[in-house]
Amino acid sequence: MKKIINQPDQVVDDMLNGLAYAYDTIVSRVPGTTVIVRNLESDNRVGLISGGGSGHEPSHAGFVGKGMLSAAVAGQVFTSPTPDQILEGIKAADEGKGVFMIVKNYTGDVMNFDMAKELAELEDIDVDFVVVDDDIAVEDSTFTAGRRGVAGTVFMHKILGAAADAGASLQDIKTLAEKVNNSVYSIGLALSPATNPEVGKPGFELEENEIEFGIGIHGEPGYSRETLKPSKELAEEFVRKLKKEIGWTSGDRFAVLVNGMGATPLMEQFVFMNDLKTLLAGDEKLDLVFKKVGDYMTAIDMAGVSLTLLKIEDDAWIDHLNSPVEVIGW
Amino acid sequence: MKKIINQPDQVVDDMLNGLAYAYDTIVSRVPGTTVIVRNLESDNRVGLISGGGSGHEPSHAGFVGKGMLSAAVAGQVFTSPTPDQILEGIKAADEGKGVFMIVKNYTGDVMNFDMAKELAELEDIDVDFVVVDDDIAVEDSTFTAGRRGVAGTVFMHKILGAAADAGASLQDIKTLAEKVNNSVYSIGLALSPATNPEVGKPGFELEENEIEFGIGIHGEPGYSRETLKPSKELAEEFVRKLKKEIGWTSGDRFAVLVNGMGATPLMEQFVFMNDLKTLLAGDEKLDLVFKKVGDYMTAIDMAGVSLTLLKIEDDAWIDHLNSPVEVIGW
Repeated sequence: MKKIINQPDQVVDDMLNGLAYAYDTIVSRVPGTTVIVRNLESDNRVGLISGGGSGHEPSHAGFVGKGMLSAAVAGQVFTSPTPDQILEGIKAADEGKGVFMIVKNYTGDVMNFDMAKELAELEDIDVDFVVVDDDIAVEDSTFTAGRRGVAGTVFMHKILGAAADAGASLQDIKTLAEKVNNSVYSIGLALSPATNPEVGKPGFELEENEIEFGIGIHGEPGYSRETLKPSKELAEEFVRKLKKEIGWTSGDRFAVLVNGMGATPLMEQFVFMNDLKTLLAGDEKLDLVFKKVGDYMTAIDMAGVSLTLLKIEDDAWIDHLNSPVEVIGW
Repeated sequence: MKKIINQPDQVVDDMLNGLAYAYDTIVSRVPGTTVIVRNLESDNRVGLISGGGSGHEPSHAGFVGKGMLSAAVAGQVFTSPTPDQILEGIKAADEGKGVFMIVKNYTGDVMNFDMAKELAELEDIDVDFVVVDDDIAVEDSTFTAGRRGVAGTVFMHKILGAAADAGASLQDIKTLAEKVNNSVYSIGLALSPATNPEVGKPGFELEENEIEFGIGIHGEPGYSRETLKPSKELAEEFVRKLKKEIGWTSGDRFAVLVNGMGATPLMEQFVFMNDLKTLLAGDEKLDLVFKKVGDYMTAIDMAGVSLTLLKIEDDAWIDHLNSPVEVIGW
């Protein structure tokens, strides 16, 4: 394992301190916790938190700040935060109007966020949540019943953040979150595995010219191992799978996220986007009303890319995606 | 070589098209050229361009937009754009008040940007430039006489962009650029080599637990190969080298950039920043007035990190670093 770290079991602590220091104009670390909270005192809105295992940076602390999350809770690498840690996040986010939690669909996360909700309710904080399950690659997985939550979560952060800023109630946000979750679809592939520093070796192995379609953001198995193909053919596979799932017709409006898995350079992500342009905007005649390319939901140092499509069901979603934010990673 | 690309010799073309499509609200590709120009019609300022070989994304096209560059010119991977290509960039940036070019110190770039200046002057466009040479690791290098230009160039983009927006003349910008260049210092290290897709194999080799201090952003040799050390010791080496060069005293003000080389995850970059906090703000008692962490000046898929320190010689520089921009990558 070749990494710029100190003690492997201190990597999350060191990382959170480094992040909070680097961006001390935007966020702070709540002392004695794994919570990154925005500095903004209050803007009188529903609190919005997310979190989960570390290793997906800039998710989720990179999306804390004005216009997006109120706070993010970090677990150890690829490990859910505990209910107590999440409770600290809820408290940090609470402005008296309730707190909404964006949870990715992993068994540990769902269980622990749910327990944190109960703990918070004992302290008279209203809490509700959505479980994001946007990954269409497989049903059930190593750490998941149903579908996994992956990069679509970032669109959820952005849209709910804007809605919260606009004065949406806890119930409004819950309704919106369910609608967005029903409209967001992702699929990924890996060229190389991730190495969890707390483990010290790669989570799986791929041959020299082998790739895996449908990989999860913790290296969970996908649906097919194949030889590396040109970008255009990789894009075709993604589009074929997504079209089958979504069943779009020409003119449908989508937001698009091409997401790097951590070690894939922007050069390749932009090449991939160029092929998607030909397929989605060209051949399929979709209306891509919002586009983004970069590392948003990573798997530490995995090489690979994912594609997220959000079907726009409401014009307000486009405004929410475009509204200004003050965060590290959007 | 395992990359998400199509024809290796088409990678720059595909990438520029993908970038221009993804961010068509901010930039456009000038047809028939390798120039990415901002959509903003004019804000009546000195034009500001940069560029060089591709492979350093988001540099430089990622810094085109309101508040930063007017345009960026891309060469083939790790290869200077030609004078004709640069001339197109100058024309795209020109608003009648002259055009300033930010050039990294590589022999090919310096020669070609200088020739482009002469071509532009034949067309009655005033052009001036700065050659950024912030890399303190080595004197002279594979493609360079003197010191190489690396991640400090990104601070140059930001400061000159803000100054141009504030109405600085071509001569003002030239003076400011020279001051900034005399105050900016960088040093980098690699954990793994970059693979130029047009070449197809890594530019150099490192053993399993070996790193190289002082590496260049095209994989040019550094000054020392050593076994991998903990992050804290890597940071100590950088701080020792930079202190010797700069000769700071406690209380001196600096802007800091921790820059990922392309394949190093944010997790490690934030750990590294945490160690720099201890060393620079703690032990050395420097006043770090502006901080940034992420991939800004990459070497395709190299794993590694660089540290840039800009000694603040004028309060206005801090305002310039903090002013809002509308670009892809800042």
